[in-house]
Amino acid sequence: MTASTRKAFPVANTIHSLQSPAMPHETTVRVRYEETDQMRVVYHSNYLVYFEVGRSEMLRSLKLPYTEMEDKGIVLAVTEAQASYHKPARYDDLLTVRTRIEELGKSRIKLCYQVLRAGELLCDGHTTHAFLAAEQGMRPVRVPDYVRAALEPLIETSRVA
Amino acid sequence: MTASTRKAFPVANTIHSLQSPAMPHETTVRVRYEETDQMRVVYHSNYLVYFEVGRSEMLRSLKLPYTEMEDKGIVLAVTEAQASYHKPARYDDLLTVRTRIEELGKSRIKLCYQVLRAGELLCDGHTTHAFLAAEQGMRPVRVPDYVRAALEPLIETSRVA
Amino acid sequence: MTASTRKAFPVANTIHSLQSPAMPHETTVRVRYEETDQMRVVYHSNYLVYFEVGRSEMLRSLKLPYTEMEDKGIVLAVTEAQASYHKPARYDDLLTVRTRIEELGKSRIKLCYQVLRAGELLCDGHTTHAFLAAEQGMRPVRVPDYVRAALEPLIETSRVA
Amino acid sequence: MTASTRKAFPVANTIHSLQSPAMPHETTVRVRYEETDQMRVVYHSNYLVYFEVGRSEMLRSLKLPYTEMEDKGIVLAVTEAQASYHKPARYDDLLTVRTRIEELGKSRIKLCYQVLRAGELLCDGHTTHAFLAAEQGMRPVRVPDYVRAALEPLIETSRVA
Repeated sequence: MTASTRKAFPVANTIHSLQSPAMPHETTVRVRYEETDQMRVVYHSNYLVYFEVGRSEMLRSLKLPYTEMEDKGIVLAVTEAQASYHKPARYDDLLTVRTRIEELGKSRIKLCYQVLRAGELLCDGHTTHAFLAAEQGMRPVRVPDYVRAALEPLIETSRVA
Repeated sequence: MTASTRKAFPVANTIHSLQSPAMPHETTVRVRYEETDQMRVVYHSNYLVYFEVGRSEMLRSLKLPYTEMEDKGIVLAVTEAQASYHKPARYDDLLTVRTRIEELGKSRIKLCYQVLRAGELLCDGHTTHAFLAAEQGMRPVRVPDYVRAALEPLIETSRVA
Repeated sequence: MTASTRKAFPVANTIHSLQSPAMPHETTVRVRYEETDQMRVVYHSNYLVYFEVGRSEMLRSLKLPYTEMEDKGIVLAVTEAQASYHKPARYDDLLTVRTRIEELGKSRIKLCYQVLRAGELLCDGHTTHAFLAAEQGMRPVRVPDYVRAALEPLIETSRVA
Repeated sequence: MTASTRKAFPVANTIHSLQSPAMPHETTVRVRYEETDQMRVVYHSNYLVYFEVGRSEMLRSLKLPYTEMEDKGIVLAVTEAQASYHKPARYDDLLTVRTRIEELGKSRIKLCYQVLRAGELLCDGHTTHAFLAAEQGMRPVRVPDYVRAALEPLIETSRVA
């Protein structure tokens, strides 16, 4: 809570550290014309969609595609989202989305994101999600074991300490 | 097919005719900043969303809210959509969306739309939809009787003739 | 900072207080099909768009339409956005969006929002914005006097004290 | 006009022909959760955005990035859009978008699109665009020579004949 989202990516600029377990997953997004607004920049709510892309691709890279989780009756409902906007992204920019697991609780997860263009930070933020059982009226459920097993190696070690 | 979408609203400018069975339903939409793009106009795909608003409000005005249809297992899947763009809408414009039933077939419906600003036509187009049974693997079904009874008075008489 | 966004609407349930200077502006939004996702609820980023609708309508009610501000070369760039999701909104829901000015600084503004359905809180959050001069390469500028004069009566008095 | 959009991709299934001048450009799009609706499929207006991605990537592949055209004062305004929906795309699907120039007039262009999943056609359609001069109050202008030179080799030869 006291550490800012930005500090939460302490070694993100150190290329070699990207291999370490606590390092963020990276994917790219090309800005669409549809995502711009008349200020000639990306409309702010679209960064939450870029966060979704980062999250989806991170899960896929862990062999945990979200579709499979939903097929098994588990949905990940967003309970909070936050974004800080530092510089605007523009049409056709090729953005990097970094996604990192910050916390994995009993039935919730917190993810942090950075959106960068050519190494420059444009936006960062986080989302928290509850694990819900679709078949049980969307009640919170414990993180399934196979999900926890896949995610735990990625949790930032400094948080665990 | 030969008549253009524009001709399909022949008396739309005559206020008194709005009461006649074949006349379009009207609703209003305020353009959101999110809907603009860097050309400083509404991004073209959003007009299909305005058409949706017109369609939803028309059904509501007929006491046929779409949610009730879905609750009864009937979904209306879009099978075609078309829009012609004449003049751009801009942020904060108050638009009028006119919706009219052009055809009601055995298991499909065609709707026509006009989007206007202060009486000036900005965009027109149409959508066609198939009535599908959600519980039967999304197979086409006949238009339910209660739906047909509610919609038929609105079908343009010139089309029926 | 210490007060939660929720506490920031302390008398919002008291109808008569809506006339008081510190009370939130209210407007309504009908959920569009396009705004839902396959979880059958409104996709979370759309609440930021509902916040935008609340903000735009509040400015309009103050005779400060945002288009006029942009015409005068002032843009309001979002610098932060946050939303907490309590209960899901669904297709066709008629939502109330409450908007309130929480802080008005030298060159920035913070707004708080609540999204409700039939009096039940679904989502709340806030946005902060910087006043920028479009003609001067998007540099921060002081809040224009005519804007400050219009907004100050609405700032929550407890915050000023 | 008489040929359907589908016929307009006559040899698209012949892999070797993708090198030929008249063959469509291909790119891929991963369906985002945000793009789905409560019918658990991609909301129909998003296909127009996929068409935009196809168009942008085709222009980039021709070394004609759209941003450069706008920097030179030329905008491509959509004047018509049409889509036929054959099968639904779903969350996380990896789609192929094929884009082809169908007509290049004095001051307008018509593009055709196909959206496929694993070789199966989900949606096809077209857009027409006017070349406008941003500095001259958005008046139609002739297709710039450097644009025509880049695009002409891609126009379907059967159309030219």
